[in-house]
Amino acid sequence: MKTSFESDYNNGAHPEVICHLLETNGKQSQSYGFDEWSEQARQKIRTACQCPEADIFFLVGGTQANATVIDAMLQTYEGVLAVETGHINVHESGAVEASGHKVITLPSHDGKMEANDLEARLKAFHADPTLEHMVIPGMVYITFPTELGSVYSAAEIDHIYNVCRRYELKLFIDGARLGYGLASSECDFDLPWLARHCDVFYIGGTKVGALCGEAVVFPTGNAPRHFMNIVKRHGALLAKSRLAGVQFDALFTDGLYFSIAKQAIDKAMQMRSLFQEAGIPLRPSSTNQQFVELTNAQMKHILRDVLFETWALIDEERTLCRFVTSWATTDRDLNALKEALRTIKK
Amino acid sequence: MKTSFESDYNNGAHPEVICHLLETNGKQSQSYGFDEWSEQARQKIRTACQCPEADIFFLVGGTQANATVIDAMLQTYEGVLAVETGHINVHESGAVEASGHKVITLPSHDGKMEANDLEARLKAFHADPTLEHMVIPGMVYITFPTELGSVYSAAEIDHIYNVCRRYELKLFIDGARLGYGLASSECDFDLPWLARHCDVFYIGGTKVGALCGEAVVFPTGNAPRHFMNIVKRHGALLAKSRLAGVQFDALFTDGLYFSIAKQAIDKAMQMRSLFQEAGIPLRPSSTNQQFVELTNAQMKHILRDVLFETWALIDEERTLCRFVTSWATTDRDLNALKEALRTIKK
Amino acid sequence: MKTSFESDYNNGAHPEVICHLLETNGKQSQSYGFDEWSEQARQKIRTACQCPEADIFFLVGGTQANATVIDAMLQTYEGVLAVETGHINVHESGAVEASGHKVITLPSHDGKMEANDLEARLKAFHADPTLEHMVIPGMVYITFPTELGSVYSAAEIDHIYNVCRRYELKLFIDGARLGYGLASSECDFDLPWLARHCDVFYIGGTKVGALCGEAVVFPTGNAPRHFMNIVKRHGALLAKSRLAGVQFDALFTDGLYFSIAKQAIDKAMQMRSLFQEAGIPLRPSSTNQQFVELTNAQMKHILRDVLFETWALIDEERTLCRFVTSWATTDRDLNALKEALRTIKK
Amino acid sequence: MKTSFESDYNNGAHPEVICHLLETNGKQSQSYGFDEWSEQARQKIRTACQCPEADIFFLVGGTQANATVIDAMLQTYEGVLAVETGHINVHESGAVEASGHKVITLPSHDGKMEANDLEARLKAFHADPTLEHMVIPGMVYITFPTELGSVYSAAEIDHIYNVCRRYELKLFIDGARLGYGLASSECDFDLPWLARHCDVFYIGGTKVGALCGEAVVFPTGNAPRHFMNIVKRHGALLAKSRLAGVQFDALFTDGLYFSIAKQAIDKAMQMRSLFQEAGIPLRPSSTNQQFVELTNAQMKHILRDVLFETWALIDEERTLCRFVTSWATTDRDLNALKEALRTIKK
Repeated sequence: MKTSFESDYNNGAHPEVICHLLETNGKQSQSYGFDEWSEQARQKIRTACQCPEADIFFLVGGTQANATVIDAMLQTYEGVLAVETGHINVHESGAVEASGHKVITLPSHDGKMEANDLEARLKAFHADPTLEHMVIPGMVYITFPTELGSVYSAAEIDHIYNVCRRYELKLFIDGARLGYGLASSECDFDLPWLARHCDVFYIGGTKVGALCGEAVVFPTGNAPRHFMNIVKRHGALLAKSRLAGVQFDALFTDGLYFSIAKQAIDKAMQMRSLFQEAGIPLRPSSTNQQFVELTNAQMKHILRDVLFETWALIDEERTLCRFVTSWATTDRDLNALKEALRTIKK
Repeated sequence: MKTSFESDYNNGAHPEVICHLLETNGKQSQSYGFDEWSEQARQKIRTACQCPEADIFFLVGGTQANATVIDAMLQTYEGVLAVETGHINVHESGAVEASGHKVITLPSHDGKMEANDLEARLKAFHADPTLEHMVIPGMVYITFPTELGSVYSAAEIDHIYNVCRRYELKLFIDGARLGYGLASSECDFDLPWLARHCDVFYIGGTKVGALCGEAVVFPTGNAPRHFMNIVKRHGALLAKSRLAGVQFDALFTDGLYFSIAKQAIDKAMQMRSLFQEAGIPLRPSSTNQQFVELTNAQMKHILRDVLFETWALIDEERTLCRFVTSWATTDRDLNALKEALRTIKK
Repeated sequence: MKTSFESDYNNGAHPEVICHLLETNGKQSQSYGFDEWSEQARQKIRTACQCPEADIFFLVGGTQANATVIDAMLQTYEGVLAVETGHINVHESGAVEASGHKVITLPSHDGKMEANDLEARLKAFHADPTLEHMVIPGMVYITFPTELGSVYSAAEIDHIYNVCRRYELKLFIDGARLGYGLASSECDFDLPWLARHCDVFYIGGTKVGALCGEAVVFPTGNAPRHFMNIVKRHGALLAKSRLAGVQFDALFTDGLYFSIAKQAIDKAMQMRSLFQEAGIPLRPSSTNQQFVELTNAQMKHILRDVLFETWALIDEERTLCRFVTSWATTDRDLNALKEALRTIKK
Repeated sequence: MKTSFESDYNNGAHPEVICHLLETNGKQSQSYGFDEWSEQARQKIRTACQCPEADIFFLVGGTQANATVIDAMLQTYEGVLAVETGHINVHESGAVEASGHKVITLPSHDGKMEANDLEARLKAFHADPTLEHMVIPGMVYITFPTELGSVYSAAEIDHIYNVCRRYELKLFIDGARLGYGLASSECDFDLPWLARHCDVFYIGGTKVGALCGEAVVFPTGNAPRHFMNIVKRHGALLAKSRLAGVQFDALFTDGLYFSIAKQAIDKAMQMRSLFQEAGIPLRPSSTNQQFVELTNAQMKHILRDVLFETWALIDEERTLCRFVTSWATTDRDLNALKEALRTIKK
């Protein structure tokens, strides 16, 4: 079987996660979020976030979490601001619009939103005499790390959050790959800081060692009224909620979530070196996703032994390709890549 | 810990299901439904249904499956007909209305729809000169077995399906507990027959031995165009689709799905005998849900050792209570109930 | 041309209304609700309602007003309670569900909701442990007069409104035919009383002398935030808002709205006498809609000269038929009916 | 009172339109679109479009027509392509998203869409392996003339329509100001040509001499099934449909619609000359909307006697302002403007 760097969701669960599922399987429990492991996991996440009052809900996947949270926190007539490359704008089959909310786009700066763009847009909106004919901005959505592997600095998020508060917008941080962002060498804040600088965020499990599951955190206990009802209405309420609860219980025991992310980042940095040694251009990225410019010949050659995703055509000769690491990435995988790259050079 | 008959979703997965998750965990796979186990499970389900052309999709839960299928098969302006006690009408937090479709209700006959009611309603609708001011019926939704534990006969479903075809409505069968219906002694048809007598149905996994997962089956390959896109739009597409695929692969190997259901039914029938011996009135039910009339004193007494759900108040003295069996119900559980009932009688 | 009692919307506008449109036509004005006539009409309606703080918006039609108001006043996940015969449940093509809200039905008592039914339902809801799996009731919708021509007493509305306040639900009164209800001999309250006993209502123009237009009144200035934006989002904002403003300005000058209704009621009562004299059974109704039981032979005979609507089949021999008066009903129309009835008797 | 060039919807109806309302007011008619004037108007529009098979529906306003047509012609999961400056993307309070459809934006070229942009986007979409995670394009929406006063050539529309057909997308032309586009000196096609080069369009009445009303035309009788039901569901069905029918009957008698537009264009061209003579920069526009660059001092000066709208800030000193003509624009209005401009120059 070929080595695959296609994604961080084409492996099973981290061994400790799957083992916890196994060892708890025989025990009876409550359902719909009231099982004991969900309760424990909530408590551990509150501790990790230093948010003793946080409301925490476990949803199954990222698109579902985004659509549910956005629908819950917006008024019917409000829209959500995101950069053009934002996941909700591009890769969720219109799940946000499906509940009636417009995604209002701002320019993407390497996947990130700039607070100045945001402020200019809000200023123009409020100065516009036709504003009641426009979609009212109600929330800002950013991803951390971004879809392009970039990470915000504390100053950047702080700036965005300040604008949000000034204009009375909610700030929502999509953390589908949160662990990788926090483990990045560029990241100058930690989880408790993040939890203090937004209105809601989620801790992605699916891409960081779980089989499924995203932990939505309302840091100050600020979950919208009847949020559980809204989750159910979105088809996002697990009957056997233990499935998510047990996994997050494992992930937040002894810092597993963070060590999984750390290890994947280490592998990603080793991978960067391999490409650099091979003289292959890389986009800057300090997270587990690496974007590499390959010629058609290089692509063909590498694909013999190593799988990856094509991301975007650069020109007729070159393609931007994505190589992703995860908890499952091994030294053997990196060696396979190294070998593939070595034979290119000749 | 007390014995619980509260539901068929407060245990983990059947051992063979959880083991299959464990044994496949180390293997890499495709995602979003293209993993090898999903493919295998589809093939096994096609065989079990004798539907070689069936389109099969794995969703996470029942409400999600209902909302997604109904939205996908209806035109925007169409509604879905269900009995008043139907799950989509009562216990899904308005998930069907959330995508704009009205649930049009018919009387419930012990949880079942009667074809004559349906036909009368459709006849009246088509005779009504104001029909363009009304919601156009586009689909019939029934549950098998019903929320009240009753099961349709082949003749009853056949009659409903005939009416549907005559009026060009789709028939959708919610099989959240499908296994228990098929294993019921009252059931006079099998899975292949069912698959030939509706337009779409699903095989519930969550309540029949899995941790999560419902297999939506379009028997003749009649999935709506872009159904995968619609699944994604509903937040119902698993990135690590192996989670559902592996479980259904286990459930449809060596008839596990059917033996799980059979065993739970056997336990439920033993439970019936216990109540009957104790002189406690039971509603008729040949499935894994038993509805029992208890006095307040009886409830209080039994709850000391055995947990169950209250279903509906009958009068000030008596409550209808639900006792449910599953793959996890043991002889010991039944003995605990027996003991609790024995001590009542004195 | 045959005399028609088919509806109160198959004539043009009352002469004073159309004249006011003509005489104001040459004058320039603001748009989108800010024209001078809309402002004047608002002021006159505030006076008529004795609600100096009322927020008033002019929408085009009844279904539109219902869908917009309900969507504006409910949270996303809330539903609206109505009787089974309620217009929103039957004759609006699912416009309420189109914005995601379930219509939760209660029994109809000759078109009216009973406060006791309402209270029982709310009590049961709040006692239900599965309430987060159900649609949360957020509003009560009643029609005054009802679709069946009946009128609530002050005591009945007061009772309903008390239940609403106790359970924190909004009360919305659909007044598509409000004038006829207030002019009914059975009505024991006036417009200011009504305005004090609900959260929002509308004064129907289309069926009471205008070409189009419904005045939505939030009696205490309690319009939801950005209601104008919501109106626009529902496609209900008139660019040339003068069209509605001028008409309501006319209707609320010198009590025209009330005299139109009064006159139609007088004609309806004369019509009742004609049927009674002819020995034809009538349902009780003190409003401008009269429901008459006709045999097939009678229907055929009357239809030669006089048009009306069939409402419902009673049995194979008899049909319930609707005869409606309006500002345009003349003595000549009544004479035509009288003549038709006279010749039946022979 | 000051002269106003603020919009083409701040006057009443054209005299012939209001007179026709008056002269038909006394006559009884059918409702909900079946009145005789709606039937006549449909016939006249079919003739004017040379589309004998066309399905024609009269809706009340532009946003409503856009939202209803788009919702009716798209599958639930499909989106509509529009340029960034398109009315549906900017000034309809999210009415399209309200029924669940994403507005997918393309660059605006002076308000117009370029077929090459469209084709490139569709090509990229179909080449994208993640296409089932994206919103499926189902329709192209363009405005004629555009919000910025520009007009497409026949070649440009033909090119766009060809791309649409090749990729199986519907083409929808928003004609809120259709008359002005057809009357423009730049326009190289006529109404029948337009009707042959799209799937659906509407003939705007509100801004071209009516009080309200837009005639939605499906040129080949290709209205979606149950379109009337969809119109009702959107709250867009007039009970007294004569209101729209009578007005369009007048507008399509003796070419009134076209002469109204022609006259307004003539006035607009005279207005252009006035600005040019005054040395004030104008954006190119051959329609009834003129966009003028004014300094703050100029704005202040002109506003003493003449009203207009500000459109966009150019810099701290200058603002782009909109001056609009309509059927009601008189020589006296132009003289007032001339006088205001004359006194600037000194």
